[in-house]
Amino acid sequence: MNTLNDPVLLTDLYELTMLQAYFDCGMNETATFELFVRSLPAQRNFLMAAGLDPVLDYLSDLEFNPGVLGLLKRTGRFSDPFLHSLESLRFTGSVHALPEGSVFFANEPVLRITAPLREAQLVESRVMNLIHYSTLAATKAARCTLAARGKSLLDFGLRRAHGSEAAMLSARSSYIAGFDGTATLLAGLRYEIPVFGTMAHSYVQAYDSEREAFAAFMRSQPDNATLLIDTYDTERAARIVVELAGHLAADGLAIRGVRLDSGDLAEHARRVRRILDEGGLAETTILASGNLDEWRLRDLVRSDAPIDSFGVGTRMNTSADAPYLDCAYKLTQYAGRPRRKRSEGKATLPGVKQIFRRYDAAGTIRSDVIALEDEPCSEVPLLQPVMRYGLRVRPTLSLNEVRQHARREMASLPEGLQELDPADPLPVETSATIRELARRLDHERELMRDDRGLE
Amino acid sequence: MNTLNDPVLLTDLYELTMLQAYFDCGMNETATFELFVRSLPAQRNFLMAAGLDPVLDYLSDLEFNPGVLGLLKRTGRFSDPFLHSLESLRFTGSVHALPEGSVFFANEPVLRITAPLREAQLVESRVMNLIHYSTLAATKAARCTLAARGKSLLDFGLRRAHGSEAAMLSARSSYIAGFDGTATLLAGLRYEIPVFGTMAHSYVQAYDSEREAFAAFMRSQPDNATLLIDTYDTERAARIVVELAGHLAADGLAIRGVRLDSGDLAEHARRVRRILDEGGLAETTILASGNLDEWRLRDLVRSDAPIDSFGVGTRMNTSADAPYLDCAYKLTQYAGRPRRKRSEGKATLPGVKQIFRRYDAAGTIRSDVIALEDEPCSEVPLLQPVMRYGLRVRPTLSLNEVRQHARREMASLPEGLQELDPADPLPVETSATIRELARRLDHERELMRDDRGLE
Repeated sequence: MNTLNDPVLLTDLYELTMLQAYFDCGMNETATFELFVRSLPAQRNFLMAAGLDPVLDYLSDLEFNPGVLGLLKRTGRFSDPFLHSLESLRFTGSVHALPEGSVFFANEPVLRITAPLREAQLVESRVMNLIHYSTLAATKAARCTLAARGKSLLDFGLRRAHGSEAAMLSARSSYIAGFDGTATLLAGLRYEIPVFGTMAHSYVQAYDSEREAFAAFMRSQPDNATLLIDTYDTERAARIVVELAGHLAADGLAIRGVRLDSGDLAEHARRVRRILDEGGLAETTILASGNLDEWRLRDLVRSDAPIDSFGVGTRMNTSADAPYLDCAYKLTQYAGRPRRKRSEGKATLPGVKQIFRRYDAAGTIRSDVIALEDEPCSEVPLLQPVMRYGLRVRPTLSLNEVRQHARREMASLPEGLQELDPADPLPVETSATIRELARRLDHERELMRDDRGLE
Repeated sequence: MNTLNDPVLLTDLYELTMLQAYFDCGMNETATFELFVRSLPAQRNFLMAAGLDPVLDYLSDLEFNPGVLGLLKRTGRFSDPFLHSLESLRFTGSVHALPEGSVFFANEPVLRITAPLREAQLVESRVMNLIHYSTLAATKAARCTLAARGKSLLDFGLRRAHGSEAAMLSARSSYIAGFDGTATLLAGLRYEIPVFGTMAHSYVQAYDSEREAFAAFMRSQPDNATLLIDTYDTERAARIVVELAGHLAADGLAIRGVRLDSGDLAEHARRVRRILDEGGLAETTILASGNLDEWRLRDLVRSDAPIDSFGVGTRMNTSADAPYLDCAYKLTQYAGRPRRKRSEGKATLPGVKQIFRRYDAAGTIRSDVIALEDEPCSEVPLLQPVMRYGLRVRPTLSLNEVRQHARREMASLPEGLQELDPADPLPVETSATIRELARRLDHERELMRDDRGLE
């Protein structure tokens, strides 16, 4: 691998300077870090966990090869003994996490890493980068799935995704959250997601006439053709499709679908549906695209527009109305002692934690409790062990299994939280033990203040 | 390279199915595509072009190796003769573009590709993906630079960037737009951008006391230490810094800076500045971070808060208030004939175009004209040839040269457009020739309607 592509260097510089300091102090006791989201964006009633499998790949592959160590040496920031120590560094810790596709809420740890301090610290930047974006996209896509009420959704978002990895991870996250496929070829191949495609306006424009463009495409892709009919005049193009279908029928070919990409999609869909039906093309489906998000999907579905599937891109994979989550990866225990920070507005809860979830008889989520891992609790613990001694402890779920889990999770949300509009939040309680622990730590810190006498 | 990482597959499926259709028709005449942004987000007075150099790398490296062709064959969607034709496909066309760091406006082509149809079509998805995001991030960062009025800005955004490439490209774009460096180590190394780092709260928490944490870091990174002082109580920590500095002075060590990351940054900065100054640490700088964007930067700078530099992350690299641009890559000429689409609300202008810019005597931009490339015009043409026959035609500018260009570009904006608040847009005119050409094409299309007799 080109050293300047090595993911071990995809980190904030400070992770490595902190590691140098830990090394110089001989500090490498066991640390626990938890990744959580401090608060939900106003437009989100739940979050959907995603990105775990890419994180486990990253942790499994973590190492500093000689090329990387040479680069680090040339920065002049690190000592030779420290760089030497990195040669043998691997991730040897354990990971507990919410299964991908799970729903979760503010302050709940979605991922927990327990490892020697240097390992757990080093991975902070990239672990957050993978979980944050994957979760952001899965959550937005889940809202689209809920709004679409069973209609088919496709990821059309490569061109305006924030770079290549956002395109890949959002194809993956949206598939988990219920999309039926992606237009991004590499994502389809890598993650084994169904790949869909239609045609571009430029394709239609390159021909002297739409009929010629459509006919050529049908000859070339007879089984997979969705013809784009809004380049010049949508209804006219629909009539051309009908006329062309008559000729193709002689060869046993049928036009699978047409695509609308501009104007009033519901109104065009109604007119086009009528033209297609009257032309004997009741089986030809209508796909709509163009600036769609969960709100527009909801309106189109409610309007009973005869649209069979939707291409959703930019607004899903940029999570346009809430393009980031207020996530954090914080030390909660070191060397057996619980830790917390108390920064204004950003205080954290100490101790190694678990989420316990209560369901009602119908299987609907009723409330969550954030408690210490070993507190006795009769409810269902959500964080599962996924890595121990740096090795995966359970077989990786297929993406289709994750997708089924996500569907069950969405169905288990209380009704209000399945809606797009802001609803009363799920009751999430912090256990009395954690609160008492936080108070005790604050008190101890007051007693141990290291600035006494400085005032 | 692992085939499932090959950038040639990072494309929408439809690019390849369209190529199959073009191949079947024998269509491969010269095509011109233009990339432009249809309209500016309400919160943007200008856009800053970026992403060109990554695009030229992509075009230079474009090829289908045997592993990739094997994967495509297994999809069952492509004919053997077509796949065989891809073996020798390379990008052989020409590219004209705005230099990176240039300011531009709605409907102006930022990049123009002229190449055999299949090549120009194939690259659509990835070219847009690179230019769109790089430009989005550069534009947001440029607004931060303008708001910071000369104060130093650092990219702190890896953790919440949308995946790895967004982190890399936004480090690059923000450096172009005037940031002084990045915390993302790999971006610093790859693009030769200065790399900065401080420390995490977890670092402070891992020690039993702040003083111990700070002292250890100073021993380990004596020349580069910026101590994070808001983990427990900001002003108390500032006093610890003063006290520690007294001890360090004996060893000739000075504490370079402190960092604030929570609470009222202006108020904390004033109090901390006073504590540091009274403690003889007038040279110790204050860095502030935490949910910063151009608006908060403007307020902090206007308030005269004694902050020397700012770490800006999430809101810059997600372009949080406008996380995408309405960009398009459209066919404007094929086989020597101008083309346009007329989709509702998305009509495009035909012909091979150039931007001509008029400046006043003081060097301030006064207006732009979008005209055909060969229209006589006395103003300055902005699109420059950067690739011909698939080869770069000019030496690549260093990132520092691009950054200087960007600074001149921002300075050449009319005053109102340098402000954060929405201003009257720059007058951008479309030449009479293009408008006449569009009318003529529409008229010809009416005469040639291929659905005549179908109604």
